[in-house]
Formats: sequence, C-alpha cells, structure tokens
Amino acid sequence: MNGPAERHRFERERTIRFSHCDPAGIVFFPQYLVMVNDLNEDWVGSLLGLPYADLIGRRRTGLPTVSLQCDFTAVSRMGEVVTLGLSVERLGTKSITLRHGCRLGDEARFVIRQVLVTTDLHTHRAIDIPADLRAAVERFRHD
Amino acid sequence: MNGPAERHRFERERTIRFSHCDPAGIVFFPQYLVMVNDLNEDWVGSLLGLPYADLIGRRRTGLPTVSLQCDFTAVSRMGEVVTLGLSVERLGTKSITLRHGCRLGDEARFVIRQVLVTTDLHTHRAIDIPADLRAAVERFRHD
Amino acid sequence: MNGPAERHRFERERTIRFSHCDPAGIVFFPQYLVMVNDLNEDWVGSLLGLPYADLIGRRRTGLPTVSLQCDFTAVSRMGEVVTLGLSVERLGTKSITLRHGCRLGDEARFVIRQVLVTTDLHTHRAIDIPADLRAAVERFRHD
Amino acid sequence: MNGPAERHRFERERTIRFSHCDPAGIVFFPQYLVMVNDLNEDWVGSLLGLPYADLIGRRRTGLPTVSLQCDFTAVSRMGEVVTLGLSVERLGTKSITLRHGCRLGDEARFVIRQVLVTTDLHTHRAIDIPADLRAAVERFRHD
Repeated sequence: MNGPAERHRFERERTIRFSHCDPAGIVFFPQYLVMVNDLNEDWVGSLLGLPYADLIGRRRTGLPTVSLQCDFTAVSRMGEVVTLGLSVERLGTKSITLRHGCRLGDEARFVIRQVLVTTDLHTHRAIDIPADLRAAVERFRHD
Repeated sequence: MNGPAERHRFERERTIRFSHCDPAGIVFFPQYLVMVNDLNEDWVGSLLGLPYADLIGRRRTGLPTVSLQCDFTAVSRMGEVVTLGLSVERLGTKSITLRHGCRLGDEARFVIRQVLVTTDLHTHRAIDIPADLRAAVERFRHD
Repeated sequence: MNGPAERHRFERERTIRFSHCDPAGIVFFPQYLVMVNDLNEDWVGSLLGLPYADLIGRRRTGLPTVSLQCDFTAVSRMGEVVTLGLSVERLGTKSITLRHGCRLGDEARFVIRQVLVTTDLHTHRAIDIPADLRAAVERFRHD
Repeated sequence: MNGPAERHRFERERTIRFSHCDPAGIVFFPQYLVMVNDLNEDWVGSLLGLPYADLIGRRRTGLPTVSLQCDFTAVSRMGEVVTLGLSVERLGTKSITLRHGCRLGDEARFVIRQVLVTTDLHTHRAIDIPADLRAAVERFRHD
C-alpha cells in the first residue's frame, strides 16, 4: 500500500469526470469498475486487432467477472487525469486473472485483481478461451 | 460456493431491471455494487433511525469502501426478484466489515465482503466511528 | 411550472439515493431518465401481467425512446422520497407517447414527455404495437 | 431528420462501449446524456482554460440542466466510434442553450437541445453567468 504505484504494460489515461463522482466529490467506487471494464475492452481489442464488440456481439463469447479483490488506497477527485493499467497474472484454460492498477503519477489509487471467464453467451457456461485470444494473451505476457 | 445460499439478518428484495443489464442480458457487475451501496444506505438509515443522507449531508461523515472481495457465483437476469442481504463481520475503531449476499431463493448469486471506513468528508481522512452509529451496529449484531 | 404538481394514474415512490446524486448533492439528470425507464418497465409489466423482461427477452420486442422533452423544475436531494408517475398522451400505430412527472408532495421536480416505439430487436425496425400491449394500453387509458 | 448530420464547432470522438449498451445491444439512452454532460465538461474546460472541476468544486458554480429536447434518430451499437459535437444556440443572462449532435460519419444518431443555468451550489439558485465564462462563450460563438 505504501511505496510507488505499480506500472503496467497496458496503460491508458482517463479523466475523472463529474459523472463519476458522488456527493462526497470523489469517484463513486462502482464507477472504477466500469473504468476497469472499459480498459479490458480496449486491451482485448488491441490484442485481437478487432473490436471487443465482435467478440461479444458476433462471436457470442462473453467475458464475465467471477471474482474481484479491490483495495482502494486513496480517493480520486473530479478533474484528475489518472492512469489505469493492467497486467496478466494467470492464464488458465477457461479463465484469465488480471491485475489492474490506477495511479496519479506515483500515487496508487487502487489495485484490483479480477478473474474473468470466457463463456458462451447463449448458455452463460464457461468455455475454453478461444485459440486466437489465448495466443494473443500469451504474446502480450512474454513480449 | 455450493450448498444453499446464506441468509442475512438485514434483507431486501430488488428487481433486476433492464437498466442493470448488459448486452449479454445479465447484470453488469458494477451494477451489483450500486445495489450493495443502496442496501448499506437502507441499513444505516434503519440502524440510526435517520436518513443516510443526514450522515453524509448534514454531519459530513463519509463511508467510503476501502476494500472489496467479490465472488459472483451465478448470473442474474432481467426480471428476476433477488434478495440482497448483509451481516456485520467485524466492527473496528474506524472501519466496519460487512458480508453481503445476493440470492434467488436458495441459489447464491454473489458473496461480497466489504470494508467501509468512516471519514470526515472535509478531509477524506478516517475518523472513529461516531458513537451513535457504533452503538447501533453493536445492537444490530447482538440482537 | 407553477401551481400544484400533476397527479398520474400510475404512480410509484422512489427514494433518492447516494448513487443517484452528483458532486452538487442533487440528482444527476441522466439518473432521472433511468428512473423513468424503470417506471415504464413496472407499468408495462402491470399492464400485461407479465414481466417486461419477457417482452424484451423472449418476444424480442424493444421499446426504445425516439424523443424526449424534459423540464426540470426543482432539484431533488439525497434521501427524499419522490413520487414518479405516468399517463398516456397518445397511442399511435407504432408509438406510445407518455407523460411522466416527478413530485415531492405538491412540488413538481420534472415533467417529461417521452415517445417510445415498438421495434423488432433483431432488426431495430419499428413494428406495429403488439395486439395485447395495445389492448392493455387502451384499457389503462379509459379505465 | 433526413439529410446529412450536422457538424459542430466543438467535436470529440467517443467509442460506444459495452458499459453504454443495454440488453438490446444498443446504447441505453440515459448513457447518451452522460456523454452530453461529459462533452459539456470538456467544452467548458477548453473555453475557460481551467478544469470544469474548478468551476464546480472551487468556485461552487453549478451548471444544471433545466430543459432538454432529444430526438434519437438511429441506434448506436457497441464498438462504433461516434462523433459528439455542440454549438451554442443562445446565450442568456443566467442560461446557455446548447445544441448537441451525435453522428457516425454522415449518419445522425441524435440531436439534443439543452438549456443549462448557472447556479450557486450553496443555494441551487440561478445566478448570472460568471463574466469569464460569458466572455469565453461569446468568443466561441463568434470565432
């Protein structure tokens, strides 16, 4: 929790907006999870070289969250431009464990571990990670 | 994860709405955390016999989330009427650890452990849990 | 805008929550439109005697909004219990025009006119209002 | 409603995300209004050369919406990169009327007229538009 914030291979900046903030003037924590989801979307898109929308919409492969561990270490305020990043912690047969961080410069705002599973969106059952996604995640990890 | 879903002392029903659901037709997980926040609001209101809004608005005492552990065990679909509940796991000096569950009948949808801290909303620093809130949480636990 | 707030045949109470409010401590206006959507969902469910989810999910009939006129006449604050209501202004072949109001006692918070069209969710094209829904809306209007 | 979509002086691209879309796979309309609010935030920030957060947070000047007229002319789908834009229709003493558009290339998705008032966030009463904001809006209009 102390020490400099983690850096991640895949990082994007986000402005903390009025619409993210609560009556206390700081980010309402479920909004952080929307940002995490948006980041995953950008990452999967960049890995596959195709829109995330194709995975969900055309191929009917889902990536629901089955578990989350979140540590919110400092508040974020409207107007700040934070850096969100992710790394892959584990690549299973049907699941991907990601580690997300949010920081302003060197100050950590949160660390989140998220386990995603690949599912068939017709049945919502877990399926093996599609071969192209698996290969792309492996390239990302070892690059 | 298997076996019947947990029961909690404080429970409320919620209808899963169109606005909670994603293009996969199931609850978008950040929406579950909004529901958890809403439940906390009802619980604090019922404990104190005063609106949560007074705590935040008039007394300027915040209850931000510092950590979360979430296991999402089954999907929830639009139109379902689920039961959300909470129990107190731990009452610290400046923090309250809650355990939340969501179930449809006996089927668990999620289990969430949430640590809240009481803060001064002027500084966003942790403060001791106010005496009336502490007393009310203790009554709730031992009732 | 002055004078007592409108009453509607179909009314439901809603608590203004922390999660609806913005850094100004009042309802963030897009949240009002989520409440309007939720109210429509309850209304259609009560009209048809079946969950709105069936209309969308099983029958694949959509009810997207094609136009909105909103007048926000007074702010709503966290903790207030407001009354949301709706009436039918016009029943077309493929569209329904609703008038929504939100009030706290006699004080109007907003008046919204919303035009919904019935669509086929496979094509997103407008379709004639299904016969059972049309009959139910007519009964609602003339009751 | 037909003919090419309007162009605006102030335009920004936005990706339609999973988190914006509903079980019908298209943008849930209240999310468009969050996008409109985000655009206003960027615009005010660019006009004043200071973060919108300063206006709201430090100066305690609000910009609530008092009226909206929205025409949603075509659906937007997950993965699309749309262009949002705004122009000033009218500059009053205490209010600004904006016209927003959303388009994908030449295809209009929505046109929205929004009236904002400047308020004192302590009282939520309308106040005259601050002089620096008024001057900046005038420069923007006549540039």
